[in-house]
Amino acid sequence: MSGSEKYGTVHGVGLGPGAEDLMSVRADRLVRGTRQIAYFRKKGRSGHARRIAQGLLRADAVEIAMEYPVTTEIPLADPRYNACLSDFYAECTDRLLAATRSGEDVVVLCEGDPFFYGSFMHLHSRLSGQIPVEVVPGITGMAGAWNATGVPITWGDDVLTVAMATLPEEELVRRIRDTDALVVMKIGRNLPKLRRAVAAAGREQAAWLVEHAAMPGQSVTRLVDAQEVAPYFSILLIHGQGRRP
Amino acid sequence: MSGSEKYGTVHGVGLGPGAEDLMSVRADRLVRGTRQIAYFRKKGRSGHARRIAQGLLRADAVEIAMEYPVTTEIPLADPRYNACLSDFYAECTDRLLAATRSGEDVVVLCEGDPFFYGSFMHLHSRLSGQIPVEVVPGITGMAGAWNATGVPITWGDDVLTVAMATLPEEELVRRIRDTDALVVMKIGRNLPKLRRAVAAAGREQAAWLVEHAAMPGQSVTRLVDAQEVAPYFSILLIHGQGRRP
Ligand SMILES: C[S@@+](CC[C@H](N)C(=O)[O-])C[C@H]1O[C@@H](n2cnc3c(N)ncnc32)[C@H](O)[C@@H]1O
Ligand SMILES: C[S@@+](CC[C@H](N)C(=O)[O-])C[C@H]1O[C@@H](n2cnc3c(N)ncnc32)[C@H](O)[C@@H]1O
Repeated sequence: MSGSEKYGTVHGVGLGPGAEDLMSVRADRLVRGTRQIAYFRKKGRSGHARRIAQGLLRADAVEIAMEYPVTTEIPLADPRYNACLSDFYAECTDRLLAATRSGEDVVVLCEGDPFFYGSFMHLHSRLSGQIPVEVVPGITGMAGAWNATGVPITWGDDVLTVAMATLPEEELVRRIRDTDALVVMKIGRNLPKLRRAVAAAGREQAAWLVEHAAMPGQSVTRLVDAQEVAPYFSILLIHGQGRRP
Repeated sequence: MSGSEKYGTVHGVGLGPGAEDLMSVRADRLVRGTRQIAYFRKKGRSGHARRIAQGLLRADAVEIAMEYPVTTEIPLADPRYNACLSDFYAECTDRLLAATRSGEDVVVLCEGDPFFYGSFMHLHSRLSGQIPVEVVPGITGMAGAWNATGVPITWGDDVLTVAMATLPEEELVRRIRDTDALVVMKIGRNLPKLRRAVAAAGREQAAWLVEHAAMPGQSVTRLVDAQEVAPYFSILLIHGQGRRP
């Protein structure tokens, strides 16, 4: 059988929130065992997922760095934004197809859980049906974040809402008003808007900001004490207050 | 120093959704290393968390089985329900205090993530401040469930709502109408009610029922094809349809 007849498997592997030992035993085995690893990163950065896996990689590991195109100048609503990302994911897909053609597997390193707001999903949908794709779930960034606060996120019948800070301000206010427990992700430069929304919903005193959960430099602050800017890896939490016998 | 002066640590350890190798490396080390383990179980059952850890326990492990009192006859709203559980958790707390008095640690086995609708939270709040308590996050049951469907749960700006099937029917309808992605837990005998709510919200065709995610006997069915009853370990999912370049 020639190599082109049997492709290797692409494994989308959840690494968890950051600490190396919060990866699952299955993920740890796959990352240690693979010769080919792939990961997303911003141009000029080492890549966060790559950093989590640093201590585990084989000496002969071949790395496939997938560098996001710079889209900061294009508004989200502009069709060129989607087109630019779409081209990028198509190109990544081609690189993974080429890498598995020999029959060898590739492990794609994913932050948190791959199927929870993850970039790997855009490769998964393109590769599925063409070659074998497997996913290993991971501990989400938000679980890392509520664990960092030392307080449970939900009790009894609490409703938990997970929303992105990229939503319009009024929509955020409505969501924050209408939930017991809250997780907001993708904060970054949306922090001022998010702050106004939490205040408008009357919940500023209950909100926490967790930066770099389970990573070096982890910080947990009340929203009212937080700085004006938040890093990419930051999560806002409001803990539920449900039934507790 | 006498043993009574320095208590051991109680570790609430998230085991993940079910498969032994979906536990974190940190959890795996703690479970394998401990001599004292504790877990919740229903009377007459082996205990689900205990089953996940089965292959990892030391031969000399001492087990502290914490058996839930039978509350099925007491309505949730009856004050006796809370009182009965409160007594139970107080008694469990005493058992863990006694077990750590010698300075030795106890690992409490927790399904999924301990701080996400978990029973361990009721011990955590009682033990905190008295003796050292540490928590190890875990992959949630819901992450196991969406992984089992092979489809990502959330994309782009999707809002995810997590609700318990124990909520009143009208509240479920409202929540199901007003979200992109949905997770419903604690289904069991609430399945008929939940089914009516999903239908009333017009989303029956999009709903999936996942039973025993990442456990032996895992099953994934569309809600419209599901049986009349669901086991304790079942989760209803509606996948988000957000932006995907
Ligand atoms: C594209 S989403 C990826 C989510 C990831 N798949 C997960 O399961 O957590 C990126 C967002 O996740 C959040 N995030 C992920 N890991 C985090 C961590 N360790 N600390 C703080 N925020 C984190 C941040 O809000 C960030 O903007
Ligand atoms: C008391 S809550 C505990 C949740 C747990 N701490 C977690 O992080 O998933 C119990 C509910 O979790 C859900 N659940 C947890 N693990 C599951 C699994 N592996 N498969 C299906 N449902 C699960 C079920 O809906 C069940 O009724």
